[in-house]
Amino acid sequence: MKYYVGIDLGGTNLKLGLVSVEGKMLARHASPTEAARGPQHVLARMAQAVRDVCVVGHVDLADVAAVGAAVPAPINWKAGTVPLAPNLPGWRNIGVRDAIQEDLGRPVVLENDANAAAYGEFRCGAARTVRSMFILTLGTGVGGGIIIDGHMLRGVTDTAAELGHMIIQHGGRPCGCGNRGCLEQYASASAVVGRMKEALAAGGASRLEGRDFSCKDVFDAAAAGDALADRLVEETAEYLGVGITSLLHTLNPEMAVLTGGMMASGESFLERVRTYVRKMAFERASTVCPIRWSTLGGDGGIIGAALAAETFDRTGQPA
Amino acid sequence: MKYYVGIDLGGTNLKLGLVSVEGKMLARHASPTEAARGPQHVLARMAQAVRDVCVVGHVDLADVAAVGAAVPAPINWKAGTVPLAPNLPGWRNIGVRDAIQEDLGRPVVLENDANAAAYGEFRCGAARTVRSMFILTLGTGVGGGIIIDGHMLRGVTDTAAELGHMIIQHGGRPCGCGNRGCLEQYASASAVVGRMKEALAAGGASRLEGRDFSCKDVFDAAAAGDALADRLVEETAEYLGVGITSLLHTLNPEMAVLTGGMMASGESFLERVRTYVRKMAFERASTVCPIRWSTLGGDGGIIGAALAAETFDRTGQPA
Repeated sequence: MKYYVGIDLGGTNLKLGLVSVEGKMLARHASPTEAARGPQHVLARMAQAVRDVCVVGHVDLADVAAVGAAVPAPINWKAGTVPLAPNLPGWRNIGVRDAIQEDLGRPVVLENDANAAAYGEFRCGAARTVRSMFILTLGTGVGGGIIIDGHMLRGVTDTAAELGHMIIQHGGRPCGCGNRGCLEQYASASAVVGRMKEALAAGGASRLEGRDFSCKDVFDAAAAGDALADRLVEETAEYLGVGITSLLHTLNPEMAVLTGGMMASGESFLERVRTYVRKMAFERASTVCPIRWSTLGGDGGIIGAALAAETFDRTGQPA
Repeated sequence: MKYYVGIDLGGTNLKLGLVSVEGKMLARHASPTEAARGPQHVLARMAQAVRDVCVVGHVDLADVAAVGAAVPAPINWKAGTVPLAPNLPGWRNIGVRDAIQEDLGRPVVLENDANAAAYGEFRCGAARTVRSMFILTLGTGVGGGIIIDGHMLRGVTDTAAELGHMIIQHGGRPCGCGNRGCLEQYASASAVVGRMKEALAAGGASRLEGRDFSCKDVFDAAAAGDALADRLVEETAEYLGVGITSLLHTLNPEMAVLTGGMMASGESFLERVRTYVRKMAFERASTVCPIRWSTLGGDGGIIGAALAAETFDRTGQPA
């Protein structure tokens, strides 16, 4: 039996899974990234964590056919490098693939984390029955991944599917990327918190007033009848509807998948998003494109990275 | 030698070309569409025009390997039908492919006009050296076509690349599609005229005041030093920059091609668009994606449709 390891590198945590060819998670391992100690330290930790997850899963490293590493940054697939990772101190032109490959003596494939999440959902998650889809990962920012005809859309410099930086409001909210009106300034978990703080500062009444709160708190307050929080949640659904509509009119895919902490709000939030998309998108595009929560959730990056490694192991080609 | 015929069906004119396998235009034919007389009449005229262009080109219809028909509406490629053409009276579920095929006894391929224009530029126009690109056709509306890895991006219901209906300004200008803030309400030739009329109605001073004018007149006035017209042209470049930036962040292609009457304004307008894209898009995406005018211009639809027919004739697959 062949095994694959998926690595999901985050700014805070390093999460790994030992994964079967069908995308089943056979064993897990998590540890702090210790990003502050710099890229070489993190690379050594990544390789060590692969050994550790093999121990947890009672599998020989030699039986791991390939390793997939998902990173929170744009990548250079061919070179296996990370040109720049804004959330990882000192990460500039880091040769992730070769470093881990040499350390472990196993083939390594490098992927962007949101692309990996898309591939995971496509291979064995919410989108396993379709051939074209996109994912929006709603966290600190908004990440994106696109599958067309069974393949990741990478673009000519691996910069496709940076969907958090679609402009939905020309001249709108300033974004960390230097631009204005990017989707992630409206629909990320952080943006929900930021917009709620603004609403409170503008004199809005809410049970969240005077408290420190998260995106989940805003959704919980809305569910508990807090009118201001509910307005914020409704607007978030509308902004997502705008972004999804533009993507439907660009890609006309078979499924849209959302993932992130907002999943806790279940179908009710998704139904709000669907209502806006039905209102805004061409019927020919919206009726064929169900909008779903991911089924892999926080494991999407791990499983997607492992299955991208499986594809490379099987075909010699990128996923 | 094999020949192909491309048909570019417009609401007013029916334009055809006899095209070589290399995309060379060997003969032309144009006639009024006579759309008011209904779909059956138009279909008969399309077939007759194919015969006519063969006569002009001194080629036997039997030597035409395949015919490509580009229509100004979404299509159903597999069925060869037009579900609904808003600009052609009575066009609802019209079997274009089979009607012309039976009339002529030659294979026919149906395409959307902007998709055909993209394919023409990709095969033998501005984008002939690249494998991925998109086109924006700036006319009454804004049409779009996307090529990824050498193939047209069609989407699951042939509704991909409706790029005029990307939302660049949530809650913005109302669009004929029922939505608000669509790119075509800002950057089409018609939108330039409409925005100029609004600026004049709001008291703006321009030499165009009190006159009936076209998009070309606005660009000409700007070039001749009319400050208001120049502001309108500058804003048009900015709006196009917004749409192109979102497309670069979604597709990360190798080239962006613009086409339509604004081509008359030459490199100076394009340079304004490029300036906005350089400012707004990720450097990794913008530096690898030149923005060019089409080189086929008004012939793009004809040549692209003919070459889509060539691809189908050669491979049995859609372009």
